[in-house]
Amino acid sequence: MKINFSTAADHLGSSAVREILKVTQGKDIISLAGGLPGEDLFPMQAVRDAYNKALSADTSALQYGLTEGYLPLREQLAARLTGQGISVSASDMILTTGSQQALDLLCKILLDPGDAVLVEAPTYLAALQVLGSYRADIHTVQSDEHGMLPEHLEEQLRIRRPKLLYAVPTFNNPSGATWSRERREQIVDLCRRYDVLILEDNPYGEITFDESPGAYPPTLAAIDRSGEGESCVVYTGTFSKIVAPGVRTGWIVGPPELIRVIAKAKQAADLHSSTIDQRALAELLKTFDLEGHIRLISREYHSRMKLLSGELAARSWEGTHFLEPRGGMFLWLTLAEPISAARLLPYAVEQGVAFVPGEVFYSEQPRKNTMRLNFTHTPPALMQTAVQRLDKALKIYSQSEELTQQISQAK
Amino acid sequence: MKINFSTAADHLGSSAVREILKVTQGKDIISLAGGLPGEDLFPMQAVRDAYNKALSADTSALQYGLTEGYLPLREQLAARLTGQGISVSASDMILTTGSQQALDLLCKILLDPGDAVLVEAPTYLAALQVLGSYRADIHTVQSDEHGMLPEHLEEQLRIRRPKLLYAVPTFNNPSGATWSRERREQIVDLCRRYDVLILEDNPYGEITFDESPGAYPPTLAAIDRSGEGESCVVYTGTFSKIVAPGVRTGWIVGPPELIRVIAKAKQAADLHSSTIDQRALAELLKTFDLEGHIRLISREYHSRMKLLSGELAARSWEGTHFLEPRGGMFLWLTLAEPISAARLLPYAVEQGVAFVPGEVFYSEQPRKNTMRLNFTHTPPALMQTAVQRLDKALKIYSQSEELTQQISQAK
Repeated sequence: MKINFSTAADHLGSSAVREILKVTQGKDIISLAGGLPGEDLFPMQAVRDAYNKALSADTSALQYGLTEGYLPLREQLAARLTGQGISVSASDMILTTGSQQALDLLCKILLDPGDAVLVEAPTYLAALQVLGSYRADIHTVQSDEHGMLPEHLEEQLRIRRPKLLYAVPTFNNPSGATWSRERREQIVDLCRRYDVLILEDNPYGEITFDESPGAYPPTLAAIDRSGEGESCVVYTGTFSKIVAPGVRTGWIVGPPELIRVIAKAKQAADLHSSTIDQRALAELLKTFDLEGHIRLISREYHSRMKLLSGELAARSWEGTHFLEPRGGMFLWLTLAEPISAARLLPYAVEQGVAFVPGEVFYSEQPRKNTMRLNFTHTPPALMQTAVQRLDKALKIYSQSEELTQQISQAK
Repeated sequence: MKINFSTAADHLGSSAVREILKVTQGKDIISLAGGLPGEDLFPMQAVRDAYNKALSADTSALQYGLTEGYLPLREQLAARLTGQGISVSASDMILTTGSQQALDLLCKILLDPGDAVLVEAPTYLAALQVLGSYRADIHTVQSDEHGMLPEHLEEQLRIRRPKLLYAVPTFNNPSGATWSRERREQIVDLCRRYDVLILEDNPYGEITFDESPGAYPPTLAAIDRSGEGESCVVYTGTFSKIVAPGVRTGWIVGPPELIRVIAKAKQAADLHSSTIDQRALAELLKTFDLEGHIRLISREYHSRMKLLSGELAARSWEGTHFLEPRGGMFLWLTLAEPISAARLLPYAVEQGVAFVPGEVFYSEQPRKNTMRLNFTHTPPALMQTAVQRLDKALKIYSQSEELTQQISQAK
């Protein structure tokens, strides 16, 4: 039978990353494409023990739970966030199926078709997809290496009258960039003045490469809460990068009025997320040295980033540049102007290496000569080979482009 | 700051059941209100072992997984459903966070505001909430004890041109009713002729009280797939009632074209549901005698239903009637015409017993003298006390109503 889908369904994009992963499946390909943490660093034993404890307690572990999530875990998280300068209580928080669900639910309760939303360029691909599925009117705020430009933000706030500003201000996916403290203060201040909510998406913020005290600016949420007046920052985080994606637990923190409505939306969406995962995480936080583990993976990711960065620098491809990220999982590479990373990709896959063409992370005016490289998932021993393959792909691509040009000129 | 919510947020109802559970929290109340399975019957040991096995395999158990769900579990489920007459393969299926999410995602990809949807009366409360949140135009099809009336269904199909028919045809929540085989065939046939999708929601279908072969009609999905022509039945089920709600895993099965679009919607919604839960279930299905466990809980629930039914019959409240359900988790009680179950509830809570007033399960023309009684969660030893308390509440309610009437007549 002919199925008549909803308008929302027509606006569901497919993920470029997902399509790339499909192409690479089963092949001998080194993938710098996915946004995956390193599996070799997962704390398997501690996680297994935690699930065992969670399922050794009373039978209520297997019963329906609260839509808002397992209270002891919310309390532990609230204490942890408070320690990070984001003063919250358990009732200001909802646990979600990864922070992706937090993003989806927030958009559901805020956005009507045509509502304006401001984003960075480039920004998180799945955020663009979610915003698109709610038919938001997405506008870009210009940035430099310190973050969004306050002048342009104010102009956009005035002209677009947005309902939401979405950003990953710390170790941005895909660009790896981090906003300065000054910019953070300016942006929170501006949004508060224009009565616009900010969704600060912070999955990577704890994966830091610089261990000196005060090396990083506070989160927007911390700045927001330390100021006077009502809060305008909604904050989402996840265990996916600091424990493992499989534990499938994120959180969203915001004004109580907002959290209440998100709870209603979540109840309709799935009643509640996995209680067993949440109870296991509560057990894990009791005994596992999470802070020590975060230091461990941060150091290892730092060393992997340096490895990738070194390999890239050694090639000194003409017209190519990048900045080393100060944390997180991604390195953003800008190739020489005429190169299209999307057209380069098939050559790369042919050579046995994959990446994500940068253009998919833009809602408008994509920079086609960019690519996102993940450095956390590929074993260090393979990094050199990965870049060698990329090098070979670039050479074959260039020859092929030249040939194409010659043929078209000869016509 | 003032938050401007979306139109969808304005249409998110709060669950009456949830509100009732809040009122009863922390008090000495026997609750027949929730839709909870009996915790004493959860297979704790087998579940714990299954999680242990799932987390003892390779580290990929903790990595991101497929949006569609863990493939081995989908294969096991497809084999199980095929054995139940619903011939499907793993690629026709998506695993969801309980079947609630299946319902939400299907509505998201099908329904635009104002699209007509047909339902039974009474029907699953959270389905009404989800349909409401997508601003569907909900219409009721009349039923008798054998199921929806084909004549009325055809009229509604012709007049309303619905996009979807939603039903729980086996041990309906809340009414406990089960459609006859003939009606099932007629309804599938009609929907196919009018090119309308059916969502068959079947969380309770395996909780059967009659063990004689052929005691129950096949599912709509099985009838649909045994016929000729294209499939019109989308089928959703869950482990919540046959294993435990805490494992938080449901599934949706439908035409490949539909499943592909649901996968896109799910990717935006939460990337994927808990992989650890799914892997543990795959381990559980390998060694645990699930069919034996389903027989065990069905027998126990049958005995609890008989206990409740016996207690109710012994009271012979004037004008009250009910039919014993042939399976599932609920008994539907119709009180004498003038009694309002919603007004009775506070008296019941005062006496220490809770139920759900039937009116919340109707999208239009609620029957106020009905209530839903759950018999699976309350320990058998408390059932007599529960009905005694209900009896006392009814008496006090009647006296109070009489008094109110006398006062209003005396005015």
